[in-house]
Amino acid sequence: MQALVDRIYGTLKARTGEGRVADYIPQLAKVDRDKFGIAIEMVDGTSFVAGDVDEPFSIQSVSKVFTLTLALGKIGDSLWARVGREPSGTPFNSIVQLEHERGIPRNPFINAGAIVVADVILAGHEPREAIGEILRFVRFLADDETISIDPAVARSETETGFRNAALANYMRSFGNIHHAVEKVLGVYFHHCAIAMSCRQLARAGLFLANGGRNPLTGFGVVSRERARRINALMLTCGHYDGSGDFAFRVGLPGKSGVGGGILVTVPGRASIAVWSPGLDANGNSRVGSLALEAIAQETGWSVFSR
Amino acid sequence: MQALVDRIYGTLKARTGEGRVADYIPQLAKVDRDKFGIAIEMVDGTSFVAGDVDEPFSIQSVSKVFTLTLALGKIGDSLWARVGREPSGTPFNSIVQLEHERGIPRNPFINAGAIVVADVILAGHEPREAIGEILRFVRFLADDETISIDPAVARSETETGFRNAALANYMRSFGNIHHAVEKVLGVYFHHCAIAMSCRQLARAGLFLANGGRNPLTGFGVVSRERARRINALMLTCGHYDGSGDFAFRVGLPGKSGVGGGILVTVPGRASIAVWSPGLDANGNSRVGSLALEAIAQETGWSVFSR
Amino acid sequence: MQALVDRIYGTLKARTGEGRVADYIPQLAKVDRDKFGIAIEMVDGTSFVAGDVDEPFSIQSVSKVFTLTLALGKIGDSLWARVGREPSGTPFNSIVQLEHERGIPRNPFINAGAIVVADVILAGHEPREAIGEILRFVRFLADDETISIDPAVARSETETGFRNAALANYMRSFGNIHHAVEKVLGVYFHHCAIAMSCRQLARAGLFLANGGRNPLTGFGVVSRERARRINALMLTCGHYDGSGDFAFRVGLPGKSGVGGGILVTVPGRASIAVWSPGLDANGNSRVGSLALEAIAQETGWSVFSR
Amino acid sequence: MQALVDRIYGTLKARTGEGRVADYIPQLAKVDRDKFGIAIEMVDGTSFVAGDVDEPFSIQSVSKVFTLTLALGKIGDSLWARVGREPSGTPFNSIVQLEHERGIPRNPFINAGAIVVADVILAGHEPREAIGEILRFVRFLADDETISIDPAVARSETETGFRNAALANYMRSFGNIHHAVEKVLGVYFHHCAIAMSCRQLARAGLFLANGGRNPLTGFGVVSRERARRINALMLTCGHYDGSGDFAFRVGLPGKSGVGGGILVTVPGRASIAVWSPGLDANGNSRVGSLALEAIAQETGWSVFSR
Repeated sequence: MQALVDRIYGTLKARTGEGRVADYIPQLAKVDRDKFGIAIEMVDGTSFVAGDVDEPFSIQSVSKVFTLTLALGKIGDSLWARVGREPSGTPFNSIVQLEHERGIPRNPFINAGAIVVADVILAGHEPREAIGEILRFVRFLADDETISIDPAVARSETETGFRNAALANYMRSFGNIHHAVEKVLGVYFHHCAIAMSCRQLARAGLFLANGGRNPLTGFGVVSRERARRINALMLTCGHYDGSGDFAFRVGLPGKSGVGGGILVTVPGRASIAVWSPGLDANGNSRVGSLALEAIAQETGWSVFSR
Repeated sequence: MQALVDRIYGTLKARTGEGRVADYIPQLAKVDRDKFGIAIEMVDGTSFVAGDVDEPFSIQSVSKVFTLTLALGKIGDSLWARVGREPSGTPFNSIVQLEHERGIPRNPFINAGAIVVADVILAGHEPREAIGEILRFVRFLADDETISIDPAVARSETETGFRNAALANYMRSFGNIHHAVEKVLGVYFHHCAIAMSCRQLARAGLFLANGGRNPLTGFGVVSRERARRINALMLTCGHYDGSGDFAFRVGLPGKSGVGGGILVTVPGRASIAVWSPGLDANGNSRVGSLALEAIAQETGWSVFSR
Repeated sequence: MQALVDRIYGTLKARTGEGRVADYIPQLAKVDRDKFGIAIEMVDGTSFVAGDVDEPFSIQSVSKVFTLTLALGKIGDSLWARVGREPSGTPFNSIVQLEHERGIPRNPFINAGAIVVADVILAGHEPREAIGEILRFVRFLADDETISIDPAVARSETETGFRNAALANYMRSFGNIHHAVEKVLGVYFHHCAIAMSCRQLARAGLFLANGGRNPLTGFGVVSRERARRINALMLTCGHYDGSGDFAFRVGLPGKSGVGGGILVTVPGRASIAVWSPGLDANGNSRVGSLALEAIAQETGWSVFSR
Repeated sequence: MQALVDRIYGTLKARTGEGRVADYIPQLAKVDRDKFGIAIEMVDGTSFVAGDVDEPFSIQSVSKVFTLTLALGKIGDSLWARVGREPSGTPFNSIVQLEHERGIPRNPFINAGAIVVADVILAGHEPREAIGEILRFVRFLADDETISIDPAVARSETETGFRNAALANYMRSFGNIHHAVEKVLGVYFHHCAIAMSCRQLARAGLFLANGGRNPLTGFGVVSRERARRINALMLTCGHYDGSGDFAFRVGLPGKSGVGGGILVTVPGRASIAVWSPGLDANGNSRVGSLALEAIAQETGWSVFSR
């Protein structure tokens, strides 16, 4: 298995120059495009890694898996009255759908949906408290107290996040955001700025591969059914408008971020995190996707092939 | 297992009155709403059934799984230049997306995509020949020469199919339909009018659960990889705008039809067909979905929970 | 006045090379791009012309003014239950709006609306009869029996009109087309293929400048109120998505066609027809629009400046 | 003429109960639905009035005519690089179009367009200064120093204006808003809260009927050409998605506001203001529109009928 990871890493390392690094946030544009890491954490406690697996990167939208989990823990399935569970499915972006669906975002992984999730977590508290709660939760999941938020990235998002402010105000006009927009966005921008390494990320996602329980710490996070359902959402909605293609090629639940990270669940077996900053046209890590496709291909781990 | 199927059948039989029978085609509106069948064909050759499992019904869009398989056999992955692989994802219907995406349908399971698939199968022949080829293929998959097309349903579709004629003409204006529209629609309407029983349907889908090979006949249908990919498409796109919800609740690849049938793959284990004509708001069998949710729940067969 | 027309003609003649000739119909693509004519017919019977004013060209969508007038004569204001009176207003084309507005086109000058108008004129007759009626009506308006339909253009439209077939089928799916689609399109394609010279066209439109009555023949065509209303529709909807711009720059009711013709009403004063085949991005005659802007500027004939 | 106005007032007074008063802003919902006024100011200095013509009401979007005029005075036709001149033309609201047209609103009279205009007027100053400038300009146009802004209405807009905040942030994400969103909206909400009587409003609009010059004060406001063009924009875009219908029925340039006011230009003759708070489905004064239709009908003042 380690040989397999090394081989895939070696083959793809040469292609990290492909794709474009996200540049809409100045802080993200500074990242070294040649960074590349693969970390596989098995549910039995073994792990296989290659490349830059200990260097923290901005997990961006991958954090939405964790905030969704946290929000479901707070208000349970009543969340689904405020956020849908369907792929967003249009190349043109989500504000159109908000209009057609009266302020209800399609799913918790598009920006609008994650902003509603942040509103749920805010729950009457100050942004500082909510951000702290999210960070503590992620540290708990990864069993690693060193995980932190990159303040420069959070500030960068705040300064340029007009599109997200539009989404939040728009949903507020329908009553689907309950707190002041700037507070909600404060929470949202900060959790997107969480920095983690591949190894930390793979560990933090391990509960999803193990029926809701972290096999390393033994702590239960969510019920078996909820773990299964979060995986389903990742598969159908985890890669923006490339979700269908990712399911087709890789066949595993995953969530990508514009920082170039992807977190993938192999139900019953492993949690995988990859990182390569060059993005494809849909905003997903190009080489990261290829690495996952190769891993799925060679291991036969696709959920569709057993 | 048989006890489980009997119990689920018994519990849900009382609810077959829920939902609305499809009425846009007069022939479909005539069906008895209380029909209900569950057929589970295991890859090991055993089977578990309950209810109306030997009565043929109009499989409608479930046939798109078979025509996709046939078209991929003819032209391989070049099909994907003419049809996408992403969930359609909008509640408003698909002609809008065709406009935005220049005549390329989002996936092969929405009407527009299946019409392109029919155009591929037509391949210069007369509709009669293409229809014959599709029917022979389905009979081969199910290993049952008695399967036929309901001519009254096919005629009914032809008479009222203005929306599909609009889609086909629209795609033809972009050059993505190569044959005369009436010929392509002739093929499309006829394969939607295939009539099969739950038992036949479950058998016809068994190759998808068994790595591309029908375990009952031993015949290979597609490669392991292609079987996996068709399953992925069923999971992300198989239930119109309820695909995300079906993945969330059931967690298995499936394809529904407005005749009330659903075909589901349990990779490595089984093929399931259910039939109950009452539909939910998205056009999927209401009681059929509940039956599959219960089966997945009790067996733990979700692809997301291993 | 003649000097003014000569001067504007002279200045703009040098620019007829600008813009692109419509090429979606092969027959239209063959036209000589340097053709340019201006014909002003005053309500007092005088006329001022310059350039190619006696050569017939394909009037295309300008014919929609005449078919609208004819349809209103047949069924009166009940037409407005089937066609709206609002500018179409989106750069992306009209099939989207048909979806949102359940098969009711925005106005009678976009393709979908004109197809409904053709359906009204068809009124249970054969296409041949309806086409004959339209042609007789246009000859009556222009008081010129030599006007005819170019059969090569009509055939050309029929062969390539998949987009219009999509629109017609789509509206038929909502019940807003009452006859067989191929018959309705037969009427539509033929009236778009009417060939007229600038001089004929200006005369045919003169009733709109004169309270509904042709001042040359003395025949009443429509009531004063209906003439006013048709002018209003031309002003708000006559130039596709360039209607607002034309009103802003020229300030007169007009209807353009992709053959490069524009018919304009100067209420109380004159009817103007210009022809220059080079089109702007919205499909309106580029030099023709400039000629009309210059005429309006120098004469002060804008409806907004009295 | 006075008799005509009295008669129309008398006939329609009985129907002021029709339509719904705008309730999205609490302050507007409090207005007495039975208020009704008609003021006609002729360019020759005579005037004809009936009903509640001296009571100030919230002019709301009618103010956009004045801010457009002011912004054109500041930056001239370069404004048109940031705002279009086409009718918005869709029943579904404008944020969709902003997405398709990359942050450029269709015209200066829809909310998004007027927000860009407010951004132009802000021009680096503080909102207080810009608001003061707009108010002084309107007082100058009406030659009436008593005109003021209703602070309760302005505050009410600010508190509930999430939809407008969404539009402004969205345009800012495309770079088409240059100042802080809250400052721009401060200007926008305040000019919408200008309170004027019918008489004041008709006088303020008189320059548009008189080639750009106020005939009562003798002061030039804009060039003849600009007056003509503003009238053209009012005709094509002045009544939201009812603009085509208003042109069809009334045939005069007009701008409505959800406070129930409508300002109309009769080029060369008069400026008319009507007020009746009950609105139709498009947000235009129901009885006000009927009054204008009757005036246009009986006087023959339509721009399309001379």
